[in-house]
Amino acid sequence: MDEEQLVRFLQRKFSFPNGRGIGDDASAQRINPSATWGSRIVAKDLFVEGTHFNLHHYSLAQAAEKSVGANVSDMAAMGGRGMEIYLGLGVPSRARTSDLEAVFSGIHKACRRWRLRLGGGDVSKAPCWFFSVTILGHALRPVFRDRAQDGDLIGLVGRIGESALGLALLQRNTPDSFYTRRHIQVNLHLGAAEELGRVASAMIDVSDGLLKDLSRILSASQVGAEIHIENLPITRRMKACCRQHDLDAQQLALTGGEDYALLCCIPPQRLKLLKGNGERLRIIGRIRSSPQRLTCLLNGRTQEIPAGGYDHLSNNLSDSRESPEFDNPR
Amino acid sequence: MDEEQLVRFLQRKFSFPNGRGIGDDASAQRINPSATWGSRIVAKDLFVEGTHFNLHHYSLAQAAEKSVGANVSDMAAMGGRGMEIYLGLGVPSRARTSDLEAVFSGIHKACRRWRLRLGGGDVSKAPCWFFSVTILGHALRPVFRDRAQDGDLIGLVGRIGESALGLALLQRNTPDSFYTRRHIQVNLHLGAAEELGRVASAMIDVSDGLLKDLSRILSASQVGAEIHIENLPITRRMKACCRQHDLDAQQLALTGGEDYALLCCIPPQRLKLLKGNGERLRIIGRIRSSPQRLTCLLNGRTQEIPAGGYDHLSNNLSDSRESPEFDNPR
Repeated sequence: MDEEQLVRFLQRKFSFPNGRGIGDDASAQRINPSATWGSRIVAKDLFVEGTHFNLHHYSLAQAAEKSVGANVSDMAAMGGRGMEIYLGLGVPSRARTSDLEAVFSGIHKACRRWRLRLGGGDVSKAPCWFFSVTILGHALRPVFRDRAQDGDLIGLVGRIGESALGLALLQRNTPDSFYTRRHIQVNLHLGAAEELGRVASAMIDVSDGLLKDLSRILSASQVGAEIHIENLPITRRMKACCRQHDLDAQQLALTGGEDYALLCCIPPQRLKLLKGNGERLRIIGRIRSSPQRLTCLLNGRTQEIPAGGYDHLSNNLSDSRESPEFDNPR
Repeated sequence: MDEEQLVRFLQRKFSFPNGRGIGDDASAQRINPSATWGSRIVAKDLFVEGTHFNLHHYSLAQAAEKSVGANVSDMAAMGGRGMEIYLGLGVPSRARTSDLEAVFSGIHKACRRWRLRLGGGDVSKAPCWFFSVTILGHALRPVFRDRAQDGDLIGLVGRIGESALGLALLQRNTPDSFYTRRHIQVNLHLGAAEELGRVASAMIDVSDGLLKDLSRILSASQVGAEIHIENLPITRRMKACCRQHDLDAQQLALTGGEDYALLCCIPPQRLKLLKGNGERLRIIGRIRSSPQRLTCLLNGRTQEIPAGGYDHLSNNLSDSRESPEFDNPR
């Protein structure tokens, strides 16, 4: 069963409220129509040893911290702010006391960094380390994936492909400390998320690659898009590093995951409402009306989409990158 | 690191609100002081293949259903009612489409049975099946573990030891369909929980065994207790089945887990406030002032506590029954 099939199956089986179906970064519910503080947002992300991380690359504290960061990113991509987390922790029998201390040091660091409270959780023996984090928070104006419209500008805050480059270098045993850090640590853009949340028609965090995450917006909104590859934020440093290691910077930027950049769609007339963080926003393309058709342009000419990009959705569940989130939008 | 050490470590490291520390079935927060609907309750329980269940005994649908039931039980033991669940699902690479359909059939059945909504979740490849369920709900009057007082009656709703008997018979390859069902299925007492929630000073669900779960109340409330073993709800059928298989019914009742019976402490003067469900309540003992001292009496004479009971807390984390919950009470 691939991701789309699972989502369709779940949509048939469970009556997600308002018939909006599933597929956002998090779920959002209005708690109290008269309250001024909007909607409650809940997100849940798994981070499993052997699937999402291995301990040759991560310390336990780093893995624990990243498992929280990925959830904060999902919350931010909904225009929300996290308040507290609940941790389900799988512990292999080889674990020592110092390992548990390391895990909770990472959780503690994440809680301080992103101003979260550890609300509770559960610990169990398991065949591998895993982190199952549920984050609770709220948003004044939740932003979904299904409201992108023809003509919206496609914007990006943060760099893309650098986490994948860091991982590729780690896997080749030619680590580069800068890109290792880009892979191991979660760099979030919470200020930008807050500001973008007020104006964006749709938003998502780039956790599975630009093309894949953009395709989720297109699919949910029933629109198409064109991306101008020359506008992607690929640094000279990244280009040089990729050349040196015979890697394709453009492909990494289009398909690499776990950068936690923010990808949003903004009606052009709302662009002027952006203040400070508007500077950090790169316009990389535009939403088009042709349903779910994605065109990549380089200097005005159509560029072939690299392997591992837009077609990822047809891969099997056993591909680690295919882990579907089935959060629903209301 | 054993459970008590982990809890102490977490108490030092994380400032659980109001200094109430951790250790309840679920966490509870007043959302809005002016609201009439009390506190939001959140619980989280892991259910891991090889630790909590194996697929020789459970179908995937049954395991999925039980993983939700255990959370509903935690919610009920706080005097709360669950509203929605979030599911983190670990899927081994051997899984087929029909396995995923079975899992979500079990989740669907649980949602219908306990009137829950599936709010969202995440799916990931993992070395084994695991279910990480977070349940959100609310309570008019949350019931904690730390408010049992000298003189309170200790009451029990539901049977105990029958799930452990079912498991023992499965493990010996001499299954008994009645007790297998008692082990595989979660039988909750939600009506009783609602009524007891209004009068109890402390409450917990018997998920890790009567002595162990009672000891959690004693430890949190800094009190002791005496239990009258002749008052335990052990049926003739269970006694006969235990005799036949050379098992100790009394020990199973005192230490067997996963019955999801309700164990509560009630000030005697409040007993008369119980209506319908009062009939189902068995008084099995009384809270005493001597801190954390637990005496088991049989026909008035002190009974030695069977191995595997009260002293479980000193076991290692690697014992599956020792999985600590670190939910906090506020």
